[in-house]
Amino acid sequence: MNFRKYISIFLFLSATGLIMAATHPGLFLTPKGVKEIRSSLGKYPLFDQSYNELKKIADEALVAEIVVPQPKDGGGGYTHEKHKKNYYEMNAAGILFQITKDKRYALFVKDMLFAYAAIYPDLGLHPATKSATPGKIFWQALNEAVWLVHTSMAYDCVYDFISEKDRKYIEANLFYPMCEFISNGNPENYKVFNKMHNHGTWATAAVGMIGYVMGDKNLTDMALYGSGKDGKTGFIRQLDVLFSPDGYFTEGPYYQRYAIWPFMTFAQVVQHQQPELKIFEYRDGILLKAVDKLLQSSYKGEIFYLNDALRKTFKTQEIVYAVNIAYKNNPKNKSLFDIVGQQGDFIVSDAGITTAKAFYREKNKPYYTYKSLFMRDGQNGTEGGIAIVRNSNTPDATCLTYKATSHGLSHGHYDKLSITLHDNGNAVLTDYGAVRFLNIEPKYGGHYTKENYSWGMQTIAHNTVTINETSHFEAKIDVSSEFHPEILYHDFSNKEVQLISALEKNAYPGTEMQRTTAMLNHAAFEFPVVVDIFRVKSPQVNRTVDLPFYYQGHMVSADFNYQKNTVELKPLGDKNGYQHLWLEANGKTDKPQACFTWVKGDRFYSITTLTDASSELMMTRTGAGDPNFNLRQDPAFMIRRHNTANHTFVSIVEPHGLYDISKEVTVGYRSNIVSLKLLADNEMISVVEIVTADNKTLLFAVNNQTGKSENKFDYRGEQYVFTGNYLLKLITNK
Amino acid sequence: MNFRKYISIFLFLSATGLIMAATHPGLFLTPKGVKEIRSSLGKYPLFDQSYNELKKIADEALVAEIVVPQPKDGGGGYTHEKHKKNYYEMNAAGILFQITKDKRYALFVKDMLFAYAAIYPDLGLHPATKSATPGKIFWQALNEAVWLVHTSMAYDCVYDFISEKDRKYIEANLFYPMCEFISNGNPENYKVFNKMHNHGTWATAAVGMIGYVMGDKNLTDMALYGSGKDGKTGFIRQLDVLFSPDGYFTEGPYYQRYAIWPFMTFAQVVQHQQPELKIFEYRDGILLKAVDKLLQSSYKGEIFYLNDALRKTFKTQEIVYAVNIAYKNNPKNKSLFDIVGQQGDFIVSDAGITTAKAFYREKNKPYYTYKSLFMRDGQNGTEGGIAIVRNSNTPDATCLTYKATSHGLSHGHYDKLSITLHDNGNAVLTDYGAVRFLNIEPKYGGHYTKENYSWGMQTIAHNTVTINETSHFEAKIDVSSEFHPEILYHDFSNKEVQLISALEKNAYPGTEMQRTTAMLNHAAFEFPVVVDIFRVKSPQVNRTVDLPFYYQGHMVSADFNYQKNTVELKPLGDKNGYQHLWLEANGKTDKPQACFTWVKGDRFYSITTLTDASSELMMTRTGAGDPNFNLRQDPAFMIRRHNTANHTFVSIVEPHGLYDISKEVTVGYRSNIVSLKLLADNEMISVVEIVTADNKTLLFAVNNQTGKSENKFDYRGEQYVFTGNYLLKLITNK
Repeated sequence: MNFRKYISIFLFLSATGLIMAATHPGLFLTPKGVKEIRSSLGKYPLFDQSYNELKKIADEALVAEIVVPQPKDGGGGYTHEKHKKNYYEMNAAGILFQITKDKRYALFVKDMLFAYAAIYPDLGLHPATKSATPGKIFWQALNEAVWLVHTSMAYDCVYDFISEKDRKYIEANLFYPMCEFISNGNPENYKVFNKMHNHGTWATAAVGMIGYVMGDKNLTDMALYGSGKDGKTGFIRQLDVLFSPDGYFTEGPYYQRYAIWPFMTFAQVVQHQQPELKIFEYRDGILLKAVDKLLQSSYKGEIFYLNDALRKTFKTQEIVYAVNIAYKNNPKNKSLFDIVGQQGDFIVSDAGITTAKAFYREKNKPYYTYKSLFMRDGQNGTEGGIAIVRNSNTPDATCLTYKATSHGLSHGHYDKLSITLHDNGNAVLTDYGAVRFLNIEPKYGGHYTKENYSWGMQTIAHNTVTINETSHFEAKIDVSSEFHPEILYHDFSNKEVQLISALEKNAYPGTEMQRTTAMLNHAAFEFPVVVDIFRVKSPQVNRTVDLPFYYQGHMVSADFNYQKNTVELKPLGDKNGYQHLWLEANGKTDKPQACFTWVKGDRFYSITTLTDASSELMMTRTGAGDPNFNLRQDPAFMIRRHNTANHTFVSIVEPHGLYDISKEVTVGYRSNIVSLKLLADNEMISVVEIVTADNKTLLFAVNNQTGKSENKFDYRGEQYVFTGNYLLKLITNK
Repeated sequence: MNFRKYISIFLFLSATGLIMAATHPGLFLTPKGVKEIRSSLGKYPLFDQSYNELKKIADEALVAEIVVPQPKDGGGGYTHEKHKKNYYEMNAAGILFQITKDKRYALFVKDMLFAYAAIYPDLGLHPATKSATPGKIFWQALNEAVWLVHTSMAYDCVYDFISEKDRKYIEANLFYPMCEFISNGNPENYKVFNKMHNHGTWATAAVGMIGYVMGDKNLTDMALYGSGKDGKTGFIRQLDVLFSPDGYFTEGPYYQRYAIWPFMTFAQVVQHQQPELKIFEYRDGILLKAVDKLLQSSYKGEIFYLNDALRKTFKTQEIVYAVNIAYKNNPKNKSLFDIVGQQGDFIVSDAGITTAKAFYREKNKPYYTYKSLFMRDGQNGTEGGIAIVRNSNTPDATCLTYKATSHGLSHGHYDKLSITLHDNGNAVLTDYGAVRFLNIEPKYGGHYTKENYSWGMQTIAHNTVTINETSHFEAKIDVSSEFHPEILYHDFSNKEVQLISALEKNAYPGTEMQRTTAMLNHAAFEFPVVVDIFRVKSPQVNRTVDLPFYYQGHMVSADFNYQKNTVELKPLGDKNGYQHLWLEANGKTDKPQACFTWVKGDRFYSITTLTDASSELMMTRTGAGDPNFNLRQDPAFMIRRHNTANHTFVSIVEPHGLYDISKEVTVGYRSNIVSLKLLADNEMISVVEIVTADNKTLLFAVNNQTGKSENKFDYRGEQYVFTGNYLLKLITNK
């Protein structure tokens, strides 16, 4: 494909389009910011460090040869990484030129832009044909938009340095063709540009930002209001649609982190260029809400693994952008300084210097307050949601997540009602996240591996119920995307009992699954425990109903007999994720409950779970069916119920004891639970009895309905009544 | 067994023994120290913190009931942990009494001593019959000695508070019987007391310390000079025998850490009580040398895993003791402040307060200088040794260990010529260490598990050669203990080439194994690389010769075809450790070398190794043959040569590239080596040719003999001559 034909069209369009007057730089860095940064250097060590890192990138770029290679490699490969490096270098050099006025930086940006302008019009689609929306410089158009976001900032910084003639050349041969390619280069790109999806956010931000630099209202209107400029698509519409009213991003926290980058960056640009739009106040401050919810979706500074997710911390540049810009546009939020302190990094921009100055000036730096919360999913907040339940507001408190959201677009997993648990600073019960080695070319080009579909997305990879070894919605995204669980209630008002209950009726047609999960903070236990009641109600007898708990740590003991496979391992099944599980051991018990204990960090953890004659207890590990070493070796304790129509799993996850390997002190390696019973279980209520080793009896009753009707049950000849969603009662043993 | 009979004997002995005059406290804490601590509180925050932790232990003890349970449980069990807690509490309360003069603390110690005195005479041997040297309070006499070390300090602190009559009662019913039991309670205990072993150090320290407190020269002489008081055994003799002249402890660094505790503690007591012995100058300052070598035997503050070893950091109390006492007795060594800063903890004692005051006063706190060194093993330094090779003096430099020591007593492994590698702050090539869950009672009572013998100690668990699936010395400790490798040379004088070569002739009778391992720091590579030449010379054809590399991280790629076992795993063998390895994959290659790449932290690592038609390439993982979930799942890349008499393995371990998951930047995921050849390999020299991707050719020749004769070889028509141990030459390709 030859793009020279577009050039004349765009020269025409830009000549007829409304050209806005513009100050340069005025995009992300402004003359005010430049002045502030100049007068601040040497005063704020962490800001200096961020500046020096940028300067190092720019200075190294100055002395190296400019190389703009012919696009060839996918993510992680040479040309891919080189083009990324190029935009980082231009961005750094542009900023350095503004701060230092050293023309060598500006010249570098100009020369590199010329090098790109020289090849861009002749570039066809990228040769690595791994994306439905290929780019030209990169294997996917997404990266092309990211390139343009960064390069726009660089161009803005050197705009006045470049002669008008040279600018015309660059704009005609590079920026206009690229805008055309990103927004309309082929039907797929047009769709993405107008799609309610984070790729669309990058695309609109890119076109909008270069539009502002070039003073082209045609482009900025397209960016803000979509190709039709009617507001049916575009950046503003994305703000309406892509976040729930609570600020939850439907793809989950990992992609919320990624999406927040173009959202906040472009919003900051809009705020500079069109302050009358009050973009940070739009939809009741949706962007600031989204940043807050992103920060809440974390444990010890690490973003939760839910849906397709890899390890990401607060230190990533996108969260540095988000926090700096959030502070700049809401300087009352001093708790952000806690996050800033953890990041120790700033953007070299107006937002960054404002944040850095305030951070150093402010003596009162309150901790960021983590809290229990429920985030609704869906544009209107009506499509289920996710609960984050914390025992206290510290970063290393016991923390339960309970996911009952909608599917989450292409990065969603078949994980209805799945839970994870963090405690004592560690991940304890985990979601596998994504099977991907981002940017490692030999690992399937750095893309999501095949095992991401065959394992990561499947239901059995999650701490929730799989029936008949088949994933929710048979792992069909079209079907899964039509439904969402029904939230019955959530209640975090009493720190002693925080709980959530949701109902999923569609994952297995005809079958109802209800999970009620509570964090109990009661003196009968050393630490908070999780009581988990998972009800399955099916019209037919199912061959298998499985509830796994993927734990982190090393197995310590089990109170049931098990047989470990020592001379041969076989997979647990042959499809739907089961082909990836080695069956390490299985067992049974005659007792009414089974207890499985492991150690993680300096603490022990036990799961005590109800069992009967039809229960099988299994220990599995991932890694089977994995020809290319893509999987980790994660262990699980799994409860399997055979030949089941209706069944209720009751499990208690209990942190206990101390394993201090430094002082060689061990205490409390045994679970404190000696008996677990399900006393009642019907459409109205479930009642659980827990007896501890020191002979305390706890009754815990939960409501199985939405709405708070009066519920009653008898126990040891006495009647108990509750009208809320639960009753927790310590019984004095006589 | 009833010990009341001993009481009268001991009253007689102590009445006739020379009773020394003594000041109290005078053992570990002295009146001078008490005064200094009192006047220092509130001035040194980290010392205050240590003091407050001690005070918290003592204060909690004051308000709790004194419980001295009938001994019953093994390590990790209730009575074991309770008796440990008791001595920590007495120790804390004793010190607190001295600092605060609050009599409640002294009364607590006295009451608890009475409680012990009430039961001790009637105690038989501990009912958990898991030790050849059982204790009475604890399952092994060792813990009894540790109890007495701590309790001696407590008794010293409250000595003057207790009436003479009460002291007589406590001494007659508790301390004298305990000294008798530890030093002579049965033939095994007598042997331990007089043994050249760290258990003997605890025993002599315990008896010596209580001896000093009670002013009983009989006991202190026995402690210093052995049961026969002739210096043939005892603490002084241990100083002669248990460390090599370089300060290496033959059991390895993990047990050096443990042994250093009674050594330094008792030495400090001797220094206080008998300064004329100049104990810290003894044997050319062997104790201070030992502390230095222990600190060197670490990476980023974590002690190396060699022989039976678990995770231990500089923060363990024993290393806090060692560093405080070492500083107190050699205040010129300011580099210890670096370690002190990492520990952030002090002993509340004379040594502790001296160190704390100096630490806070001293502005010049040089970094502790890690360096390349060779430590000779054996009392006379003639029994092989261990090399620690570092690329620089920083804690996270590239660091190679090469172990060619004697067996290492009962905690030794069959690991002749084994290596490990650390780099970039991470363990990269690892030694499994011990298979043990210290103090976790359900894990084989907290003892070394059966798998420690069947796996951890076996040769195949180490990065060295196993022949015919049989461990060195057929894993017979008596045989292994008779031999040690011959060190041919080691040379760390040139940072560009640091290397060591050793020869092992006895591990497989008739077979010679020579390993020459070098760290090359050359501009041809981004980071230092390890070149490893392992020569095996056998009189017979061996079925298999295996060289595994146990790596940490995730497999990225291999440049050879391999078949991964996806639907069934089988162990690699059925004995000598092989029963614990799942064979995950195996492959072959037609190329003259194979390359295996993985990622750890933000860096890639490749092993490029010579191959031929008889070479099999295997990927294994531990975890087979493990009925009780005692093993981790550690992966290895293993080179197997079939049907081999003489064979030389040549492997290059190469760190490369960058994998920054936060910034999503990946560079250099491929090895930089495109060709590896062994050009010459004979009794005189081995010559390796390495060609890099950017077409540099490196010639690396090593001497295979001890002594620096002149060596020659031809290459591309030119003669190369070298007289040292190596030649490294960059060849300009024409």
